[in-house]
Amino acid sequence: MCRWMAYCGEPIFVDELLFRPCHSLIEQSRRAVEAKTGTNADGFGIGWYGERALPGVFRDIMPAWSDENLKAIAHQVRSRLFLAHVRASTGSATSRVNCHPFSSGRWLFVHNGQIGGFAQMRRQLEILLPDALYGERQGATDSELVFLMMRANGLDENPAGATRATLATILRVAASCNVNEPLKFTACFTDGETVHAVRFASHDHRPPTLYCGHTAGGRLAVSEPLDTDGERWQSVPPMSWVTMTADRTQVEPFAVH
Amino acid sequence: MCRWMAYCGEPIFVDELLFRPCHSLIEQSRRAVEAKTGTNADGFGIGWYGERALPGVFRDIMPAWSDENLKAIAHQVRSRLFLAHVRASTGSATSRVNCHPFSSGRWLFVHNGQIGGFAQMRRQLEILLPDALYGERQGATDSELVFLMMRANGLDENPAGATRATLATILRVAASCNVNEPLKFTACFTDGETVHAVRFASHDHRPPTLYCGHTAGGRLAVSEPLDTDGERWQSVPPMSWVTMTADRTQVEPFAVH
Amino acid sequence: MCRWMAYCGEPIFVDELLFRPCHSLIEQSRRAVEAKTGTNADGFGIGWYGERALPGVFRDIMPAWSDENLKAIAHQVRSRLFLAHVRASTGSATSRVNCHPFSSGRWLFVHNGQIGGFAQMRRQLEILLPDALYGERQGATDSELVFLMMRANGLDENPAGATRATLATILRVAASCNVNEPLKFTACFTDGETVHAVRFASHDHRPPTLYCGHTAGGRLAVSEPLDTDGERWQSVPPMSWVTMTADRTQVEPFAVH
Amino acid sequence: MCRWMAYCGEPIFVDELLFRPCHSLIEQSRRAVEAKTGTNADGFGIGWYGERALPGVFRDIMPAWSDENLKAIAHQVRSRLFLAHVRASTGSATSRVNCHPFSSGRWLFVHNGQIGGFAQMRRQLEILLPDALYGERQGATDSELVFLMMRANGLDENPAGATRATLATILRVAASCNVNEPLKFTACFTDGETVHAVRFASHDHRPPTLYCGHTAGGRLAVSEPLDTDGERWQSVPPMSWVTMTADRTQVEPFAVH
Repeated sequence: MCRWMAYCGEPIFVDELLFRPCHSLIEQSRRAVEAKTGTNADGFGIGWYGERALPGVFRDIMPAWSDENLKAIAHQVRSRLFLAHVRASTGSATSRVNCHPFSSGRWLFVHNGQIGGFAQMRRQLEILLPDALYGERQGATDSELVFLMMRANGLDENPAGATRATLATILRVAASCNVNEPLKFTACFTDGETVHAVRFASHDHRPPTLYCGHTAGGRLAVSEPLDTDGERWQSVPPMSWVTMTADRTQVEPFAVH
Repeated sequence: MCRWMAYCGEPIFVDELLFRPCHSLIEQSRRAVEAKTGTNADGFGIGWYGERALPGVFRDIMPAWSDENLKAIAHQVRSRLFLAHVRASTGSATSRVNCHPFSSGRWLFVHNGQIGGFAQMRRQLEILLPDALYGERQGATDSELVFLMMRANGLDENPAGATRATLATILRVAASCNVNEPLKFTACFTDGETVHAVRFASHDHRPPTLYCGHTAGGRLAVSEPLDTDGERWQSVPPMSWVTMTADRTQVEPFAVH
Repeated sequence: MCRWMAYCGEPIFVDELLFRPCHSLIEQSRRAVEAKTGTNADGFGIGWYGERALPGVFRDIMPAWSDENLKAIAHQVRSRLFLAHVRASTGSATSRVNCHPFSSGRWLFVHNGQIGGFAQMRRQLEILLPDALYGERQGATDSELVFLMMRANGLDENPAGATRATLATILRVAASCNVNEPLKFTACFTDGETVHAVRFASHDHRPPTLYCGHTAGGRLAVSEPLDTDGERWQSVPPMSWVTMTADRTQVEPFAVH
Repeated sequence: MCRWMAYCGEPIFVDELLFRPCHSLIEQSRRAVEAKTGTNADGFGIGWYGERALPGVFRDIMPAWSDENLKAIAHQVRSRLFLAHVRASTGSATSRVNCHPFSSGRWLFVHNGQIGGFAQMRRQLEILLPDALYGERQGATDSELVFLMMRANGLDENPAGATRATLATILRVAASCNVNEPLKFTACFTDGETVHAVRFASHDHRPPTLYCGHTAGGRLAVSEPLDTDGERWQSVPPMSWVTMTADRTQVEPFAVH
């Protein structure tokens, strides 16, 4: 079901958070403890904001723990805001185009969860994309599609509104297709300034886990804590919306009507 | 622009035709002489009919000339009907899901050419796929989409009719999108019994090359001759439809209205 | 620490044993239960004897569970004798040249275990290879080197003797290098006629597991049982040598002096 | 036979020199014009000095022209000193461990050329490595081995002397093995401060090409000019040693006795 992390704060080398903590995301690619699947080895990716107008993205299909390139790049890149993701496929191919983060314009997006019944709904959902975003679709994952729908629904202007509208649309299409499986959506996305995270599930309201945390110089949103220092990490309740900048983390209720 | 080959006849080891001829498809992956691009190194694939109900497909993203797995598999596999393809991308990612042959049911499909203006038309064309075939789309190439459209248009019952209908639809959508670039389509597809090949281009009627040939025990359709034995190879005229079985090759005019 | 399997008997499609059993090797690549590492996702490989003089080998670096090519090839290839391996690296890179099976002449070789202190001994061991075999070394694993040493020590003429001589040499070099870590060697190798397997460890005499089993038409040697049918599988005691053909499995004590 | 480039000077984004020039190294991976092989598509690599003690290295096996990760990383990374390489294999596998640049300590190394008769000499040459460097060998290329030999021969203290000693050793071993093929060595290496390049060939004294050039803010050593501005590029004569820093390029004769 994937694991991810997001950091914003003082610029740090990516490997300080991606590799060094005792339960780092790399360690979680082998042995996640709060995920449905302990092994998250169907590809990985990092996205970071540096000196350029658009963020950098590096994705590959090997397990994160064994990729020498990831180790080297995470050691060299220093960033004030980055996302990372290790993937456990729910069906689509292990291919770079299916790996997170997905990027579109200045936005980066990572997701843990699943659109239940996606195979039945895919066509109806893709039709909804406007021409400009349709052409950005490269892979076959539900995650990439939700992200593009959110872009179409106004992510730039109103992140929470765009997310709510997108999830509402998916639930409506699911109902019309008689899909009974839940929509699970613990995701994180950013325009390079503010980090947004959401923990949502339809039906049972039991989405994948989400935690907020902090370091000396910055703030984190993660699938599961990166270490055992209980004081550093707060579990975010189901049905929440998180807004995170370098100096503040705000958690609000989030519902889809 | 890609190069491909198809064989049917007495069962032979794949490498006898794929690797051994002096201008084999592997050699063409380095130095094709009748193609717009001499280098065809953006992935490769083979598809073959063996003892199973469905054909085998092996595709990968390295240049065909350097892949040890391809060499080993082509050396071991003996088949009465196989296709092979070396890819020169016209834009989509070098990813296994974008490599030929594409397969659907008992069908295999390889393509050399390009749907001019595909980026503008993609959405309108994908919408036309019926639900069942929509879900089979894995990549982002024009080739895979044309193939699925042909399946939707009755490839099982009437291969030439389905091809004609598909190309006509694409030309109609192109016109409605004010696309001026030509549609180039030199393709080959088979249900495991009969091999069909087509050499078609809109506008200037100058599609990529296509040749028919033969060996002691079988027949070939190829992008360009595998050797310099002029007697073995006949150039197929533009705007032609080829029907090939182990003992007969038939060439007919092919037009799209 | 890797998992492997070997089959000989009536020709069968590889996927019948590699994919279909409830605890198949593919399942073990995710969740091995008798191995030091449950996840064996640092590459995989199959080797099989078909109609050619030399065996076929297909190896790649993705987890075995997610490779579409492996699924396709295992579905098509029918063989009377094949080996398969899923890898958990003990340090060397995830690279095709480091994946098992290794091949040399008609021989195939898979290994589960580790030469303790290999980094310290590598140079002294590689020096021992004769010129002809030295050039066959492609990667950096201890496994490939042991195999080439066995070839040098007369694997063709006396498999058990060559294995014993090789392990004795390694233990001698280890002693001279003051290596204290044990040599663990549960391996399988074949010339295409007879399958040899060995379960050996120095020091504590606790090598990785090894089982023999059978199907309706053939015999198996495996790291751990492919299903829960207890009657089909016999645990091979530590310090044993196994000789297996289509109609007979023989287990003998094995010691290195 | 490979193509490479090296830059030192004011920090610039890597893609400004790697991608943007009309005959950039990426373009040379498709169509080199002064190389024995026009296509250099058997892997690629970049190495750069940034804010860390050791340089970053990113290598992969796809053609450089099609790798999205390379494009992204070259766009983000800004460096005052970097090397890049596109590979045309002379025999060894297309594997990350065989891709340049090779790194060892603070050193990076790229090579264009070939040790004639390497297969015959490999064992005698590898034996010469001291224990510490022997363990660094990961692949099977002649290039990596020459680099490690240079390290063993004192690259830190005396780069030209270490290079001369290494090439002399290789020529001596070649003579003792009755190798008649020439040693061709147009290489570049740096400790992160000074860039050294050498253009050497035994026998006919016709090594692969080497050019020096400059930009507004820095200096370049390249296999072939990156553009058609003749004034920017000087051909380095065969049998030369180049010493390059941000503000000075010095060319001296280089001979091996």
